[in-house]
Amino acid sequence: MARVRKPIRSEIAWSTPERIVVKGLDLPSEILGHLSLGDMAWLEIKGTRPTPAESAVFNALLCTLVEHGVTPFALVTRLTYLGAPESLQAAVAAGLCGLGSTFAGTAEGAARMLQGVLGTRQEPRPVPDLAEAARAVVRDFRERKASIPGIGHPLHKPVDPRTPRLFEIARAHGLAGRYVELMQRIQEEAERGAGQVLPLNATGAMGAMLCELDIDWRLARGIAVIGRAVGLVGHIAEELRNPIAREIWERVEEEAGEHLRPGG
Amino acid sequence: MARVRKPIRSEIAWSTPERIVVKGLDLPSEILGHLSLGDMAWLEIKGTRPTPAESAVFNALLCTLVEHGVTPFALVTRLTYLGAPESLQAAVAAGLCGLGSTFAGTAEGAARMLQGVLGTRQEPRPVPDLAEAARAVVRDFRERKASIPGIGHPLHKPVDPRTPRLFEIARAHGLAGRYVELMQRIQEEAERGAGQVLPLNATGAMGAMLCELDIDWRLARGIAVIGRAVGLVGHIAEELRNPIAREIWERVEEEAGEHLRPGG
Amino acid sequence: MARVRKPIRSEIAWSTPERIVVKGLDLPSEILGHLSLGDMAWLEIKGTRPTPAESAVFNALLCTLVEHGVTPFALVTRLTYLGAPESLQAAVAAGLCGLGSTFAGTAEGAARMLQGVLGTRQEPRPVPDLAEAARAVVRDFRERKASIPGIGHPLHKPVDPRTPRLFEIARAHGLAGRYVELMQRIQEEAERGAGQVLPLNATGAMGAMLCELDIDWRLARGIAVIGRAVGLVGHIAEELRNPIAREIWERVEEEAGEHLRPGG
Amino acid sequence: MARVRKPIRSEIAWSTPERIVVKGLDLPSEILGHLSLGDMAWLEIKGTRPTPAESAVFNALLCTLVEHGVTPFALVTRLTYLGAPESLQAAVAAGLCGLGSTFAGTAEGAARMLQGVLGTRQEPRPVPDLAEAARAVVRDFRERKASIPGIGHPLHKPVDPRTPRLFEIARAHGLAGRYVELMQRIQEEAERGAGQVLPLNATGAMGAMLCELDIDWRLARGIAVIGRAVGLVGHIAEELRNPIAREIWERVEEEAGEHLRPGG
Repeated sequence: MARVRKPIRSEIAWSTPERIVVKGLDLPSEILGHLSLGDMAWLEIKGTRPTPAESAVFNALLCTLVEHGVTPFALVTRLTYLGAPESLQAAVAAGLCGLGSTFAGTAEGAARMLQGVLGTRQEPRPVPDLAEAARAVVRDFRERKASIPGIGHPLHKPVDPRTPRLFEIARAHGLAGRYVELMQRIQEEAERGAGQVLPLNATGAMGAMLCELDIDWRLARGIAVIGRAVGLVGHIAEELRNPIAREIWERVEEEAGEHLRPGG
Repeated sequence: MARVRKPIRSEIAWSTPERIVVKGLDLPSEILGHLSLGDMAWLEIKGTRPTPAESAVFNALLCTLVEHGVTPFALVTRLTYLGAPESLQAAVAAGLCGLGSTFAGTAEGAARMLQGVLGTRQEPRPVPDLAEAARAVVRDFRERKASIPGIGHPLHKPVDPRTPRLFEIARAHGLAGRYVELMQRIQEEAERGAGQVLPLNATGAMGAMLCELDIDWRLARGIAVIGRAVGLVGHIAEELRNPIAREIWERVEEEAGEHLRPGG
Repeated sequence: MARVRKPIRSEIAWSTPERIVVKGLDLPSEILGHLSLGDMAWLEIKGTRPTPAESAVFNALLCTLVEHGVTPFALVTRLTYLGAPESLQAAVAAGLCGLGSTFAGTAEGAARMLQGVLGTRQEPRPVPDLAEAARAVVRDFRERKASIPGIGHPLHKPVDPRTPRLFEIARAHGLAGRYVELMQRIQEEAERGAGQVLPLNATGAMGAMLCELDIDWRLARGIAVIGRAVGLVGHIAEELRNPIAREIWERVEEEAGEHLRPGG
Repeated sequence: MARVRKPIRSEIAWSTPERIVVKGLDLPSEILGHLSLGDMAWLEIKGTRPTPAESAVFNALLCTLVEHGVTPFALVTRLTYLGAPESLQAAVAAGLCGLGSTFAGTAEGAARMLQGVLGTRQEPRPVPDLAEAARAVVRDFRERKASIPGIGHPLHKPVDPRTPRLFEIARAHGLAGRYVELMQRIQEEAERGAGQVLPLNATGAMGAMLCELDIDWRLARGIAVIGRAVGLVGHIAEELRNPIAREIWERVEEEAGEHLRPGG
């Protein structure tokens, strides 16, 4: 077949009997005790130790993603743990599987939309007029009858309480630049066109901040995955103390089949 | 059927249009900008903000678990991402599925073993003589021909470089107590009995520290899951820049079927 | 390192531009149109085409495992599909993750228990007295305070309606031998000792029949996985026509947090 | 909140102590011993017992999907099983996670494309000229610079050996109608336009046959999932006899980090 073999290389880590090195840092002496988990996530994704500003903003982003109460994902993790308590990892994995287009895709979509206009920080595109760019984006989504990622929320109206706080943190650390501005202009433009209250939701704010942190939109969902993994373990911790999965299952089973059973 | 309905309750979070509260803390004003991701994980699992000592030790534990290079899990995530790049969450989920008894189970096993002897911090059992307890544990495992969790390492000999560093951090924060001592005595006893070098490996050290932090052994695997979720996103980040999954697959496919193909 | 490279070989399949061969059979001309899906599963697991008797019994086993109504697994698949409709495969995967010790492990446990006594068909152990063997098994489980796999059912009492039918099919095809007999004796012995009705449930019957078909107990859970994968796709098909996942989620979320919300 | 509660109903199955009914059929007396696994899958997805013609074509489709040798999915399942042999279900689940757009999406895409033109069998659209419709489809994909699902194959050229066989089976059972014809015309048109050999591959043939069987394109991936679940259990069966996962991992780890290690 004469297939050409390509080399298989990874720059992430290496070890010898005495040493373990991750991203060029000695794990015991340069990472443990020096980096927090959020900073370690930055090291994994960006390849560097974060600056204090990057650390503050990135950890705020990650913490926003951890917990949303009894979501479909949390139910999935709890119901799976009911069936396979010996495989806690599979219960978290099952919960993560649902982080798709319905809920988790919007931060990704917002980051993609913004990087589509402004490029990345490493390869920026010249956009002289952000207001005009915002109008073009809203027009394009409207023509495709698609909803604009990061805009609108079923509960948190007229303001998603996470959004101003996230932007405040970004601003305090000098990390609220053109992506944040474009996202805000898109929200204003969308709200004006719709004639109804359309808040800039937390996923929109996060999408903008991921761009400010120069994280590729294709990894945005990975940031959500990290946050949710933490939260799903929290739900297992509660399920251990106060289980609800079996009761949910039994109620649904009873109701779902009631009309079929004889005499039902 | 007259099944008694049980209430379905969760204490984790609630929200109204204006507010989002997690574990009793206002998310925008009390969590974002105040807690790092590792501290948020503590809040999720333990229900409180960590003390500085708890934060330092817990984050060190979590960081130890993030990255181990090109592991089977990392390969699983990369190969799954090759097939479904639009479902990054499923690629991480697939990678987590393998965190079972072979690799990830040992920190859990060590914590279980130690809590089995000493109880939890909340419900401690009186154990006057740790040396005698260690002998009993090693004897028991030997009789069952089971390997002792946390003891031995194929590469890191005679010392796993993470272990002394983790214990140093625990000691510096006043969190190296009886669990750490028992784990060390078990290692000494095991090595003496085996007549060969048997290092106390990182999973043994972590198991002991999870007990010091009063985390139920049944959640030990959850701590590993959180760490690895971070690392697996790191592997996807590298796969985006420098993909290796397809080359691995093609090489294996070629070799695995060579003897079957005509003329092979 | 002087690690010795081992060969990587698979006997399962090979292909050239013109041919695709699976387990030695030409896929287009010898499999397609000749084997049903159940027979193909036999070919994959056992490496041969099934005899008509094997096909009848194996397909009956597989069909028993497909559908159990609105189980925790079905809920998991539906809730995951709600979050990621573009990743149907991940929704089925999530549902399968819960096939662990609580529900799915019992057919595996029964097969393991029976092969533990009688060996496999390829390497049988001499057991002159099945009644005595059954007594020993029941005694052993009772001493360990473990429940006997395949015995007892919360709903299907005094008889699990699947069990006599499965044994009838096995008998009709000459495949109800010593494993079936031992399983029945274990049930009688268990019921006698317990002083209450303890039916031989479907997983017990299946465990025995897997042994009759000479399938390793370590693959028993794989048979369940195949059956459930079929059923979970059926639940997605219904969810497409008549979605219930969102309603389940919303009801649970409302109830679970009611006591926390202000005025709640 | 005044949220309106919607009923939660499922038509799939019900049971009482004496009875288990699936899709209106008594499981013990009307399904077990009467339906094969493939026919049971039809019952789950379509809600009826298949006719002999439907059974023949559907089982051929399913069998085509079972086995493709050492694919990325098979590697994922084997590597996950290495880490968690006690969770076989999670190993299969991990393997399924990768059935996304790269490989498995094409049968779905072909069915979607064909149903987009011709509607479903239940709600057909009038298309007087299939040749013109084919030209429009090819033109549309070309303008979007998208590859046409079901067309082209890296290895099986000029003919994918599964395609003529699948169409032969469909024709023999009177189930090769307008969808098959349109798919073939699309292939001819695509090949003419490209000026190179572009075979109608097996996923294209399957996409067309799924339409002939009146299966919603949104379930096409579910058919693939069922087939692959069977195949992945087959790979675990082989891994039990002749493990390769550890060797693959060790080789990759060695090579991937060689350039990083001191003296490497």
